[in-house]
This record gives sequence, C-alpha cells and structure tokens, in this order.
Amino acid sequence: MLTVRMSDTKVWKTCMGAIVNLLEEAHFRFTQEGVSMRAMDPSHVALVDFRLPSSAFEEYRVSKPLGLGLSLTELNRVLSRAKSDDALVMEHDEEKNRLLVTFRGTSSRKFSLPLLDLRESELPEPRLQFTALVEVMAEVLQDGLRDSETVGENVRFRVTEEGFFMHAEGDGKSAELRLEKGSAAMPKLKLERSCSSMFNVKYLSDMLKAADPKDVVTVHLGEDLPVKLDLRIAGGRGSLSFILAPRIELE
Amino acid sequence: MLTVRMSDTKVWKTCMGAIVNLLEEAHFRFTQEGVSMRAMDPSHVALVDFRLPSSAFEEYRVSKPLGLGLSLTELNRVLSRAKSDDALVMEHDEEKNRLLVTFRGTSSRKFSLPLLDLRESELPEPRLQFTALVEVMAEVLQDGLRDSETVGENVRFRVTEEGFFMHAEGDGKSAELRLEKGSAAMPKLKLERSCSSMFNVKYLSDMLKAADPKDVVTVHLGEDLPVKLDLRIAGGRGSLSFILAPRIELE
Amino acid sequence: MLTVRMSDTKVWKTCMGAIVNLLEEAHFRFTQEGVSMRAMDPSHVALVDFRLPSSAFEEYRVSKPLGLGLSLTELNRVLSRAKSDDALVMEHDEEKNRLLVTFRGTSSRKFSLPLLDLRESELPEPRLQFTALVEVMAEVLQDGLRDSETVGENVRFRVTEEGFFMHAEGDGKSAELRLEKGSAAMPKLKLERSCSSMFNVKYLSDMLKAADPKDVVTVHLGEDLPVKLDLRIAGGRGSLSFILAPRIELE
Repeated sequence: MLTVRMSDTKVWKTCMGAIVNLLEEAHFRFTQEGVSMRAMDPSHVALVDFRLPSSAFEEYRVSKPLGLGLSLTELNRVLSRAKSDDALVMEHDEEKNRLLVTFRGTSSRKFSLPLLDLRESELPEPRLQFTALVEVMAEVLQDGLRDSETVGENVRFRVTEEGFFMHAEGDGKSAELRLEKGSAAMPKLKLERSCSSMFNVKYLSDMLKAADPKDVVTVHLGEDLPVKLDLRIAGGRGSLSFILAPRIELE
Repeated sequence: MLTVRMSDTKVWKTCMGAIVNLLEEAHFRFTQEGVSMRAMDPSHVALVDFRLPSSAFEEYRVSKPLGLGLSLTELNRVLSRAKSDDALVMEHDEEKNRLLVTFRGTSSRKFSLPLLDLRESELPEPRLQFTALVEVMAEVLQDGLRDSETVGENVRFRVTEEGFFMHAEGDGKSAELRLEKGSAAMPKLKLERSCSSMFNVKYLSDMLKAADPKDVVTVHLGEDLPVKLDLRIAGGRGSLSFILAPRIELE
Repeated sequence: MLTVRMSDTKVWKTCMGAIVNLLEEAHFRFTQEGVSMRAMDPSHVALVDFRLPSSAFEEYRVSKPLGLGLSLTELNRVLSRAKSDDALVMEHDEEKNRLLVTFRGTSSRKFSLPLLDLRESELPEPRLQFTALVEVMAEVLQDGLRDSETVGENVRFRVTEEGFFMHAEGDGKSAELRLEKGSAAMPKLKLERSCSSMFNVKYLSDMLKAADPKDVVTVHLGEDLPVKLDLRIAGGRGSLSFILAPRIELE
C-alpha cells in the first residue's frame, strides 16, 4: 500500500522535469524513510541520484518497501497538467498495476499510469577524489552554459584561487565566464589545488533545469574528473545530484 | 445599408475566433433585432448557434434584413489586427460587394473583405430531451479537456446526484475529473436522472475557446444524447450555443 | 587600440538586431568621433546608414581610425546573451584579429568573434528630392505594416494636406490606415505637394524593428521616389537611417 501527498506539486514536478531529459524511464524505491532513485543514463555518461525523505510529504504511508517502474515521459505529461496551487497525491493501484496521480484543487483530477517492469539497478556511490568545491548561484551556471552553446558543444570548468571559470570555444569563436572569488553569486570556494575538466554542455544544461535560478548549486570538481552537481530540493530536505563524466581533450 | 459599431471589439473577436474552428465560412443575418448565425460544421457533427442583439452595439443601423456570407478564416485574420482599445465598425459596401471592417484607435484602419455567395441554411432548433443541466466554470471544463487530450481523443461527461464527472482513457492510461455537488465552481446542478455521453475532445475544446476561464458555461446532458453548451457573451446580452453529437462506444 | 564601453547594452543590441535583417555582414568604422557604418543590402534595394557618436559611450578609446568587418549574424548571436542590466565592453584583439565582447554583470562574460576581411564600401549619400516629411509614432507604422501583410506584399505610403495614409491590396482584399493631420501620433506633417510611392512591406518591417513603438520616426517621401526613414537612437545622439527603393506599379 502506498499513499503519499504533497501540498506543493512543484517540487516533484521540477525534479521529474529535469530527470526526464536524462532518463526515459526509472525505478523509484519507496521505503519508510522516503523515496529514492539512482540510475545511469542510457549512454552511461551521467548518473542521477534523487532522494526525497518522507518528511517532505504532508502524508506518507508505505506499508512495506515498494519499487515502482515508471515511464518518466508519461509521468511528465501528467505532471504538466498540475495547476500551481494543486495538491499532489500519488497512490499505488495494486490490482490494476498502475500509479494513480491526483491533483486536488477546484476539482479533483485523477490520472492513472501503467507501471513498467523495470529491474532496480544496483549502483554503488562512485568514489571520486574531488580537489575543489564551489557553491554557485544556478543562474550563473545556466548563463554560462547558454553562452557556451553559442560557440560549441563542450565547456571547461576551472577552479583556481582566483575564482570559478567556464570556457568554451569552436569555429574561431570563444565564450568565457569569470566569477571572481568574493562574488555574492559564489558563497563558497574551497580548493586543495586548482583543477579543470571539460564537459558536454547539453548534459549540464539538462541537469540544471531542475534548479531555480536563484538557488545555490554545489559543484565538486577535480582534474579531468567527473563533475558532481548537488541541487537542494524541497527546501533542503531532499537532494538531486548528478555526476557527469568528463570529455577528454584530444590533442 | 448596414453600419454597426461596438466600442469593445473583444466580444465579436472572441466569438468569431471560436466559431472559425468549426466553420470556415458562415452566413450572418442582420435584422432590426440583431445579428444571428446558425450552421452545422462540414462533417455534420456540431451545430453552432450565435445571437447578438442590436443592444450589444453602440450603433446599429440596418435598413432592411441583410444576409452576408463571409470567410471566417479571412475575417479572423482581419480581427487579429484589432488592438485592445480599438472600437470596431462594420459596414456593407454594396457597390463592391464587400464587408468593411474598421478599427478606430490612434489611427483609423479599414479592411475590406469580399462577400461570399452562401445560401442561408434553414436549420430548425433541434429538440433534445436532456435529463441533466449543470452550470460549470469554463476553466474546469477546459482543464478536464486538456487532461483528456493526454490520454485519448474522447471524453465521457457524466452527471449524477454526486456531481459532474469527465473521464477519458486509452493506452492503459486514464484521466478523470470530479466536481462534487456544492463546489463553488458549479453554481447549479439539476437532474431528472443520472446520465452520461461520450464526445470528441477536440470539438469540445474548440467550442470552449470562446469562453473566458472564469465564465460559467451551461451544459445540457442526456443518456447517449448530444451535449449542448451555452456560453454567455456580451455580458449576457448575446449567446453562443454549440450542440455536439455523441460518440457511441462500440463493445 | 580600441576599447569602448556602454552601461546600457540595449542601444547597440537593438540597432544590430534591426540591421542584421538587411545585412549579414558589415564594415564598421571607429574614429575619434564615433562609430559609423553605411552599406547596401545584397539585392541593392535598401541602404543602411548607422552613426553613433563617441558621446553615446561611457568610455571610448580609439588610438587611430579603425575598420572592423563583422558577421552581423554572429554578433547578434552574442548580443542575444546580454542580460538587461549588463554593461557592454567591446575591444579589438589585434593579435588574434578578433572582436572581444564582454558583458559585465553578476559575472563577467567575454565572447570573442573572428573579424572578417571586408572592403569598406564607398557609398555617397544619395541625393533625393523629397516633397513631403512626416514624423510618425513608430507604433502606427508598425501596425500599418502588419495590417498590410495580411493582404499583400506591397504597401503604398501617401502624404497629402489631410494626413498620412498607408494602403495595401490583393486577392480582392484591402487594408488602409489613415492618420489625420493633427493627430497626437503625428507631431509633424510638412509637404511641398502631395505624393505617394509603393514599397515592399517586408523591408519596411525589418527596418522598423529597431524602433521602440513609442518613438517617433521621420519619414521622407516623394512621388515614386525611395523612402527615407530616420530613427533616433541613444536618446537622439545617434541615428539609424534607411533608404528603400520604391516598387513601380505595372499597369
């Protein structure tokens, strides 16, 4: 038996809206503690780690640990129908093997979605020796990525004692973003040593779609290592993390 | 001779904008009482009944009853050019056999449209034995139809003692809207007996395009009967009604 | 050496955004006095004349007259990334033969663009014997052009003692705009004699994209002569003028 309720559909909707760009379907695990999902994207370049504790819900009733396989494409089509002040209820219809999604507002609107038979992926948390950490306003990253898109498909992240930098180039053009140490848009900069890595712009843009422009995103970086992005969700109670493999420059 | 003027173009523009989705051309009848139009759509599934009394116009001069055949596609292209505070003037140019549409605002902008030689259709008012009537806020119907579109092409309307319901399903998915009796979004619910009928979603959506989301729409329903939707226009002085044939479920 | 800075990127962005519709690339001349550009469009139907004095910049440093060939398409792609409160800095990177465009806001974002080897076109100012001049609010012209687009591809401008008129027709339809002498939307009307000329609507629309709807545009007209449109930019310090050849009606 599963019945969960949130008065604000936005948290769930925003997370699913970001994850669907990386995964078409996903296996969610509901336990007493909360709901979680960890998966690699089909090309095995990106890892998604989503956690939302039961305390982020107004009502959270799970009789025993439950795994639900869902088409994120279908789920998002349903979530797109939520109105801003609707409450969200999700229930498991065991008999019909469906997820029931209800929006409660002026009227009550219930959608049912077929469950998919997905195997749960057993992915250990990757151990990465990051050498720098910055907390950056999401808007700055989002701007820098859109700048980068105008010149090429990759962007280099760099952290030094001086600040955080993004650099892209291609076809004789270049785009560079500089965020100097001490900027109000970067509340934290910590590093063991300077480092830089290059990433695919499209993946990073998709990951940052879940972030409110004014939110702070934590970026973990190393030298030619994957990047880890931590987004705070549900007022910091939940987390949505992404790990993205670097692009290695061929010379 | 025909000269009519409205200080608010919005009434005329909104009605034409909804009708054009069902009819490409139409024969309007201007008499001393006002302007009216009744026609079936080309597939004979829907009937449109439009009435706007002379009192809805600031100036209304018709020397004798006059029928004007118009391309609604062309008329809407012209009306799309109206600015929000423009007054609307429509005149018949007998010599050139055209309709003159003028928007009076900062400048005066006059469009001329060729008249079409359309025969007036003699459609009697259909007699239907509806067994239920609900007054519902347009927004609720519009939401329910957009929900239905995400799962299939048909939607079932149902009225019972408990309230008003919309239900659609397809491909293992379903969408249901419940509006309980007593809801502020349903000022009236009257029924002889419970009834339900199924309709094409697209037609209903097109019909409701003329309704302001906060307006109340009157829905007349019967068991496997057509539905009749009454929209109030021009502050209740005019009316725009649609009748749509049901889809019969094959089993 | 070239370094120029504007606290408001909008002036530069709007001008480039209008010019790019007529020219894909252009040769800008930076001197002590300011920056200027004059060119014909590829089909030799329209002439663009752009002038922005050094006083329109907060900082303006040019060591010697300098010509820069730029892809306006590329430049606009970069300018589209400016945020509303960013300051704009443009510099010449002589070594790499590039233009550096920097947006200074929360972060500092620098783009580099390759310079093109364009020959400066030596275009004399055309001498035209206009017989009428009107100052019209840009919005009126923009409305009249959009009206005209709904009926055909040409529009006739006409100035008489009575006012300013735009007329388009095609396929049995017509659109006419009348702006009577004395209208608040036409602060000036001066004429030696009545005149009218016909122009391509698309070209005029492109030219007026640089004008704020509430700005006044000066229109110079003659009988079957080109039209000249003068737009005030940077609060009247700079100017953007367009000359467009007439369409001659074949009878």
